[in-house]
Amino acid sequence: MADPWQNAYDFAVQVARAAGAVIRNAGEDEIKVQTKSCAVDLVTQTDERVEKIIIGSLKEQFGNGTHCFIGEESVAEGEPCILTDKPTWIIVPVDGTTNFVHGFPFVAVSIAFAVNKELEFGVVYSCLEDKMYKARKGKGAFCNDEPIKVSDVNDINKSIIISEHGTDRSIEKVTKIFSTMQKILRIPVHGLRGSGTAATNMCLVASGASEAFFEIGIHCWDVAAGAVIVKEAGGLVLDVDGGGPFDLMSRRMVSANNKVIADRIIKEIEIFQVVRDDAPIQKK
Amino acid sequence: MADPWQNAYDFAVQVARAAGAVIRNAGEDEIKVQTKSCAVDLVTQTDERVEKIIIGSLKEQFGNGTHCFIGEESVAEGEPCILTDKPTWIIVPVDGTTNFVHGFPFVAVSIAFAVNKELEFGVVYSCLEDKMYKARKGKGAFCNDEPIKVSDVNDINKSIIISEHGTDRSIEKVTKIFSTMQKILRIPVHGLRGSGTAATNMCLVASGASEAFFEIGIHCWDVAAGAVIVKEAGGLVLDVDGGGPFDLMSRRMVSANNKVIADRIIKEIEIFQVVRDDAPIQKK
Repeated sequence: MADPWQNAYDFAVQVARAAGAVIRNAGEDEIKVQTKSCAVDLVTQTDERVEKIIIGSLKEQFGNGTHCFIGEESVAEGEPCILTDKPTWIIVPVDGTTNFVHGFPFVAVSIAFAVNKELEFGVVYSCLEDKMYKARKGKGAFCNDEPIKVSDVNDINKSIIISEHGTDRSIEKVTKIFSTMQKILRIPVHGLRGSGTAATNMCLVASGASEAFFEIGIHCWDVAAGAVIVKEAGGLVLDVDGGGPFDLMSRRMVSANNKVIADRIIKEIEIFQVVRDDAPIQKK
Repeated sequence: MADPWQNAYDFAVQVARAAGAVIRNAGEDEIKVQTKSCAVDLVTQTDERVEKIIIGSLKEQFGNGTHCFIGEESVAEGEPCILTDKPTWIIVPVDGTTNFVHGFPFVAVSIAFAVNKELEFGVVYSCLEDKMYKARKGKGAFCNDEPIKVSDVNDINKSIIISEHGTDRSIEKVTKIFSTMQKILRIPVHGLRGSGTAATNMCLVASGASEAFFEIGIHCWDVAAGAVIVKEAGGLVLDVDGGGPFDLMSRRMVSANNKVIADRIIKEIEIFQVVRDDAPIQKK
């Protein structure tokens, strides 16, 4: 049977590449920073412009009213963030806006596509590195058209673990994040890393550069594409609480090369509460 | 007056590029990990082989007995680590060995050159990114032959700060490192980052991607080349204690885009003791 979404997958790759070129060429005058939820949650004109370009292209190609769109900046402006059974595009125009503002070398465009609430494919373009990561359900994961696979390390003592500090600077959350990181470092592991973008972090797991990436506080758009890429590269994506099933809207996840590493990391994670992406009330 | 060390500077760039190519092409079989000071302080055959290539090339060109060499792996094997007035090459073959072992994308070759105990030039080749950073005293800093300069950010709240967890996993040191990071994050700053290599971290400061990088526990070879590059890019390199002068052998430093940022970071750094690189007794 022909793949009903192959065309959409190929088009998403094109759109991500074009969006990445816009980001790379963004002039200094565009990097005028505004803030969203707090003083360190940044957004630029480029974020908003690139999201409009991406959603515009996708609507022109597929948007006869049957496709839905969940975009980071559209949601920030009040659009709903609800995953239905309809074909749905889940988009981050600039993942790693803080990196982008500073010229730190990890900035990604992330485009995922779900049907019947199931992720069909994901595309992450790490545009400053010029690395195009992509995966179609059941068809493997690739970086610049070369197949990628997760690390085969089973020994936690030989792992690199990725996490991020996020943008919430409340003492309770920061203390839990640092406490978790400190416990993991002292297992010991080879090292802790963080690229500053969740999408790129997941691709680092998918390509075997890191054994696991976990975070509480991410949004569905940050990890939707990466989740397909990690799974198709042979890894797994789980909830942080006891390794239950990953819930795209829960704002928390562990992605890992295998269950041994995932379980060991999950043991150390100090969980804190976050408001779900699809919560009916307005997020602060 | 002609620059007496221009020839050496140009040659160092060639040698770093050739060494980087060896690292990029290192086969899987070479990445057999050994450990040095502890279970997470790694060394591979490539580290040792590349250092021999670098020192061999430099000795062939300049080594008529008047030049000295301080190399990371040679010192690990018992060679002295003393800076004299003689022309001295200070070398890391693979900065970021843990990254190299895992395929994490920051691995650098670092070559510095000092005369009369003063650093004359530095070359850092971030070989997986193919970025050649270099600086000659008084002649500016460059990345792939384009001039680079530090960030002009004065507001600590708008900064990205880099540090590393190091390889010492003792509870006292890890606790101080995390406590320092947590205090800096909550100033708040835009973010904390770490590439996993000190040499690359210094180049990220020099090129404006980060406002400051500090670490206690680094070695002279990790930061010698980067120190020249940061200074020539308009930044400064200081001691972590009160912002006194940088001491290459002290195993601690803050590099920053300016004094305002450096002083603010120094206020938060919890200092711990480390054995100097030039200590007469054998380091553990």
